[in-house]
Amino acid sequence: MFARVAVVGCGLIGGSFALALRQAGRAQAFVGFDRDAAHATRAKALGIVDEVVDDLSDAVRGADCVVVATPVAAAPAVFGTIATSLAPMAIVTDVGSTKGDVIDAARGALGAAFARFVPGHPIAGREVHGPEAARADLFRDRRVLLTPVVETDRDAVDAIADAWTACGAKVERIDAAAHDRLLSTVSHLPHLLAYLLVAQVADGADAARMLELAGGGFRDFTRIAASSPAMWRDIAIANRDALLADLDDYGARLAALRDRVAAADRDALEALFARAAAVRGAWREGGA
Amino acid sequence: MFARVAVVGCGLIGGSFALALRQAGRAQAFVGFDRDAAHATRAKALGIVDEVVDDLSDAVRGADCVVVATPVAAAPAVFGTIATSLAPMAIVTDVGSTKGDVIDAARGALGAAFARFVPGHPIAGREVHGPEAARADLFRDRRVLLTPVVETDRDAVDAIADAWTACGAKVERIDAAAHDRLLSTVSHLPHLLAYLLVAQVADGADAARMLELAGGGFRDFTRIAASSPAMWRDIAIANRDALLADLDDYGARLAALRDRVAAADRDALEALFARAAAVRGAWREGGA
Repeated sequence: MFARVAVVGCGLIGGSFALALRQAGRAQAFVGFDRDAAHATRAKALGIVDEVVDDLSDAVRGADCVVVATPVAAAPAVFGTIATSLAPMAIVTDVGSTKGDVIDAARGALGAAFARFVPGHPIAGREVHGPEAARADLFRDRRVLLTPVVETDRDAVDAIADAWTACGAKVERIDAAAHDRLLSTVSHLPHLLAYLLVAQVADGADAARMLELAGGGFRDFTRIAASSPAMWRDIAIANRDALLADLDDYGARLAALRDRVAAADRDALEALFARAAAVRGAWREGGA
Repeated sequence: MFARVAVVGCGLIGGSFALALRQAGRAQAFVGFDRDAAHATRAKALGIVDEVVDDLSDAVRGADCVVVATPVAAAPAVFGTIATSLAPMAIVTDVGSTKGDVIDAARGALGAAFARFVPGHPIAGREVHGPEAARADLFRDRRVLLTPVVETDRDAVDAIADAWTACGAKVERIDAAAHDRLLSTVSHLPHLLAYLLVAQVADGADAARMLELAGGGFRDFTRIAASSPAMWRDIAIANRDALLADLDDYGARLAALRDRVAAADRDALEALFARAAAVRGAWREGGA
């Protein structure tokens, strides 16, 4: 049970975590901060936080848990600002989609408090964002990956793991570099590919007609292309190395596919599609 | 009202059209043929067709409506086989995702009956296939595009349009070449891109772990990668010209994106993502 949780970034994920913690009875009070004051105000109106504070240092003062739920590129500035205001035993955690960069930022800014920084990533999201999109059940049956490092205090990790478990999530610990590499391929790359396809349609001479005729395949393939541009800009840059390797791999596959289509190579095309269909058909979200 | 509908290809689309026509009371009897005899047998067991005939010429004999619902590459052989067995006033239609190649095949094989060939494409599908996947409501509120040519008999077009309307579909007429170009970008291209992403994950050293950690973004982006490999092999080849142009366009965009990620060009990345997010966020399936 936390006495006071500071929610830094009152959007979809920070807001949903606050709502879930409140519903689970795992915190007594929530104070919200958002760089966008209107977000914070709406988060209070929606019952996500009890109180809004417009100075970040003041927001974390007295909190025993600080949840950093900003786009990942804001993490260095957030850690730099809060470092000297943190209560002695406060636990700091985050929800960013990349972990290596956030860990580096925390290590560089938090000083002794870095031992109580628990890097986290809930694998859950919606294509809508902002406090209105927050839902208490967003993490139910979803994986939350924690990526503690050698310096991380074990009790702090347990406390954050317990909090997520109380929110209905399945908590797993994983190496941060492995996390960033694996998520690049199954999450970051498809987001970029979906944005590109929508841009290609939008740039077409017949864009309006194409969008009229687009069906369920387009709908599902591009759902993630409505995701927060600022968040995905930051992820693309933060996880640049893994993503560049994945983009190069994908580009090579695309070029090979193009040649097979040009050559009308029925067997090669069917073999490629059949392998992918078998893997995707057998896949179940959340693991076997 | 058709007296006897021959369903050539008893899979997802052919089976669903038969079920929908039956439910709408638009046909008295259904006879099924499938190159895969087990498919035809299951279609009968599921009540999709009343009778199964294992010779294609016999199947269409006496039918006043023939629905060709095979992968598009089978169309030339189907038309060649049925041409001499068609009843004098029989209407032939198809449900293929590409129209130019099917029209060429029909024109080359059907002779005088080509005037009563109505090319069609229902924009509906599921990621599962075969007769078990057929559903009477698959076309409800979905678009069906008819692409008659100058030779096509107007009454035949009206009869097929009426049949689809009775199944709950919204029927539209469109030029076949425009159809193939537009659908290449919003349907055929994303199918190929989804297959490629799944293949990349499957080929990864950590494939099993990646599939465990994959979440809702991966789920939706790759749903269409479970689609019928034979069907999409045929579409990729049948619509080769439009698809090659789209693949080249996409490849150029991918290369440009790669450079922006490598350069950590925040502004360019955010502008690209924001434009796509705005277009996708405003899009509604089935048009405004």
